Amino acid sequence: VAAATKWWRLLLVLSAAGLGAVGAPQPPNIVLMLMDDMGWGDLGVNGEPSRETPNLDRMAAEGMLFPSFYSANPLCSPSRAALLTGRLPIRNGFYTTNGHARNAYTPQDIVGGIPDSEHLLPELLKKANYATKIVGKWHLGHRPQFHPLKHGFDEWFGSPNCHFGPYDNRAKPNIPVYRDWEMVGRFYEEFPINLKTGEANLTQIYLQEALDFIKRQQSQQRPFFLYWAIDATHAPVYASKPFLGTSQRGRYGDAVREVDDSVGQLLQLLRGLGIAEHTFIFFTSDNGAALVSAPKEAGSNGPFLCGKQTTFEGGVREPAIAWWPGHIPAGQVSHQLGSLMDLFTTSLSLAGLEPPSDREIDGLDLLPVLLRGHLIDRPIFYYRGNELMAATVGQYKAHFWTWTNSWEEFRQGINYCPGQNISGVTTHTQEEHTALPLLFHLGRDPGERYPLSEHTQQAAPAGSRDTGETLQHQHSLRPPSPGQVSLEKCSHPEQNWAPPGCEKLGKCLTPPESAPEKCSWPH
Amino acid sequence: VAAATKWWRLLLVLSAAGLGAVGAPQPPNIVLMLMDDMGWGDLGVNGEPSRETPNLDRMAAEGMLFPSFYSANPLCSPSRAALLTGRLPIRNGFYTTNGHARNAYTPQDIVGGIPDSEHLLPELLKKANYATKIVGKWHLGHRPQFHPLKHGFDEWFGSPNCHFGPYDNRAKPNIPVYRDWEMVGRFYEEFPINLKTGEANLTQIYLQEALDFIKRQQSQQRPFFLYWAIDATHAPVYASKPFLGTSQRGRYGDAVREVDDSVGQLLQLLRGLGIAEHTFIFFTSDNGAALVSAPKEAGSNGPFLCGKQTTFEGGVREPAIAWWPGHIPAGQVSHQLGSLMDLFTTSLSLAGLEPPSDREIDGLDLLPVLLRGHLIDRPIFYYRGNELMAATVGQYKAHFWTWTNSWEEFRQGINYCPGQNISGVTTHTQEEHTALPLLFHLGRDPGERYPLSEHTQQAAPAGSRDTGETLQHQHSLRPPSPGQVSLEKCSHPEQNWAPPGCEKLGKCLTPPESAPEKCSWPH
Repeated sequence: VAAATKWWRLLLVLSAAGLGAVGAPQPPNIVLMLMDDMGWGDLGVNGEPSRETPNLDRMAAEGMLFPSFYSANPLCSPSRAALLTGRLPIRNGFYTTNGHARNAYTPQDIVGGIPDSEHLLPELLKKANYATKIVGKWHLGHRPQFHPLKHGFDEWFGSPNCHFGPYDNRAKPNIPVYRDWEMVGRFYEEFPINLKTGEANLTQIYLQEALDFIKRQQSQQRPFFLYWAIDATHAPVYASKPFLGTSQRGRYGDAVREVDDSVGQLLQLLRGLGIAEHTFIFFTSDNGAALVSAPKEAGSNGPFLCGKQTTFEGGVREPAIAWWPGHIPAGQVSHQLGSLMDLFTTSLSLAGLEPPSDREIDGLDLLPVLLRGHLIDRPIFYYRGNELMAATVGQYKAHFWTWTNSWEEFRQGINYCPGQNISGVTTHTQEEHTALPLLFHLGRDPGERYPLSEHTQQAAPAGSRDTGETLQHQHSLRPPSPGQVSLEKCSHPEQNWAPPGCEKLGKCLTPPESAPEKCSWPH
Repeated sequence: VAAATKWWRLLLVLSAAGLGAVGAPQPPNIVLMLMDDMGWGDLGVNGEPSRETPNLDRMAAEGMLFPSFYSANPLCSPSRAALLTGRLPIRNGFYTTNGHARNAYTPQDIVGGIPDSEHLLPELLKKANYATKIVGKWHLGHRPQFHPLKHGFDEWFGSPNCHFGPYDNRAKPNIPVYRDWEMVGRFYEEFPINLKTGEANLTQIYLQEALDFIKRQQSQQRPFFLYWAIDATHAPVYASKPFLGTSQRGRYGDAVREVDDSVGQLLQLLRGLGIAEHTFIFFTSDNGAALVSAPKEAGSNGPFLCGKQTTFEGGVREPAIAWWPGHIPAGQVSHQLGSLMDLFTTSLSLAGLEPPSDREIDGLDLLPVLLRGHLIDRPIFYYRGNELMAATVGQYKAHFWTWTNSWEEFRQGINYCPGQNISGVTTHTQEEHTALPLLFHLGRDPGERYPLSEHTQQAAPAGSRDTGETLQHQHSLRPPSPGQVSLEKCSHPEQNWAPPGCEKLGKCLTPPESAPEKCSWPH
């Protein structure tokens, strides 16, 4: 038996070496799978009790799981902007100063979007001859200058905004669905989502778009970058007919099951084409589960506190799996503090490119972590708007500000921490703790239930806002130029009334007259 | 490569067949590993973020994981009595009627213990020639008539009561440690636990006891039953020096790491002796994590509500792994609703024995689940004392009574649901819901945060106390005989003053004079 094992291993080594020799010195394909509002606790491998993600669990078993991987913001747009720029929202413009500590995203009446001055990942990857495609939600501005094909993507199939409304195309235009430069229909019209049954074929369409793109690039022997930003797990959650009613977790679980199945199909295609060892995949989510949509349309943040919109762990700690057979050793768990922004720098590194040197980049190159199991000392910063709410250094997390949502919202039933209530922590007024931060040890208390006492804080590395790393971080933040503060203004006529291509479909709507005003962000 | 795989597989099959042929038609060895206050969320495989249980995670990967496995009670003694008798505490006497819905255990001043009329698993396994040993905590009564060697065990190394005090042997005797019939010392004396540093060698001693027992039985070719009831994860938690300070989770994590390492060593011994395929192991815990001891000395209940002492999921849903290489297919997750009591019936089945037919047995034979992936429809009942607090049928859980603990205790800082507060659910008075049970769907809402509305309830199978299964269950409960209600009386002189063997050690203490009184159970 021992001899057989040895021979078998030798064969594997030889065959791997052979594969390497066959390929040109071409950089690996890169697939970033970004889920929408999926929570840390939604994966079987992260303890979801119904265990309905066999493909993702297998992906983790074949790759590297990151239990401490963070979004750059507890909300979709800033988080996505950070991923594609490698920079915190405070640097790339995805924040406002309209209200203190307000999360900001891009609803369809927003005037702004991703600034031209930002270098996006697909744009940079073009230098290494990558074919680039975004499938799914863009969410970095819907006006023509913000179009993904103006920011480095060769192809797009998906929507500029979220599918959570409007639903009737009267007071507001329904969100358009684009193929490349032109709209090919709208949600709830050509691309129906049945709000009553939850049925929609969108995940199947997004899957096909991804499968087709991969096959096309493979036949042309071209390295590809696929940004697969699907949104079935964002309320209103949806699934296609074969998945509806199949989950123990209700409709949200149906959506997760379809996502999981799709991931399985994508990995299977890569294996079938013989390019699995030439394709780096990272699976994660844009922010924590939207507990405000619970119980029917929200995921799980496992043992963590609160959810989307908050800077507690439940708002920003993400499911995260890296997969690259033959390169990332199988079955690893990395305790690296990781960030969505690292996917920017790591992708560039995979392509043999350097990140831009004329600006601060917050993302790290994770390749030493992925390939050699290194651990890189780095902080995690938690923002709302331009306010640094909290920071994690090692196992210590310091809250400089706490806030869930306003009493007014809370009394209306809007609750980002349903069933959870920690005195002085889950506050409904914006509480400042900069003089003596609320400190937690995330190893001993991942649920942020027990603030450490003042006495204990003395010994802790992240004990106060004055710690070196936080200071260094704040110092490195150049005040954004006025043009870069791009999400300040909203305007009714700026909505998706008449996207390019609407004429061909006869689906142009007439925008009303109105003046831009300051955007208002309730939380 | 394909040919090599084939050849390799063939060798494995042949070698497995060979092993089977060597053994006589002897029933498999049985090892039940029962942890103390370990929570569902403490295993890496159940999502503990620090992922510090590689051996248990591997055990799960090689065997079958049960995400929906339940204790028979949210407290140690009744739970252990249920495991060893296959019967609910309401049947085997491990409850009282002294206070409504009070959990009851066996402190050292208790007069009662496991009734003679109960047939314990080791006693029954003797019929199939099993050598039987308990290592660790007994907790079914410390007076001579309740001694484990009077109830079927051949050997014992461990303690009759919990190690959580007393600590000074003055007002009360410290808890003795027994080898078989005689005490060989006491906690905090011959068997030190350093309350300041958390250092104790007990897990190492319990590990050695288990390893030695296994080796001895193997050399005698005798089937064995090992009940490994170790207690390092019960407050005050402890670990031996090599493990202290090694966990990211603090001292509780140190204890878990030592437990995990010990499990790894036990499995390795079985592999080394070539009897892994002849040994059935089940790993679980006696009740949920004791959140009242958090944050320093408690584990995690993952996404579930509350902890030990309560009939919410956090009180009774347990980590659970079955392992029997070559018999239980590797890498399985079973959604069977399981119970600690099933380990009684399943063990008998493994030994080729029938459970007693003269009484109600609540445990199921899980072999069809383990070996063939069947799912058996069965309810789960949640008791406190003699009160049926809740029942689960399928995915629906109905609470007939809710209660965490009294306002008085709560105001003193005793909190079984720290950071969790669900209006009308986590109540501090005993709230009756028998007319319209509080209903939850555990698939969609494992955290019991969202009671279903009255309207929804109509469609649910466990919607009211009148459902068939609950009625049938209550009907099958014969009123216990007065002698069987054995935990009613406590008495100061009944403590471990002078256990057998104390003379040899010169460690007999003189009991004071006092009269028995009703035990008082605050929660």
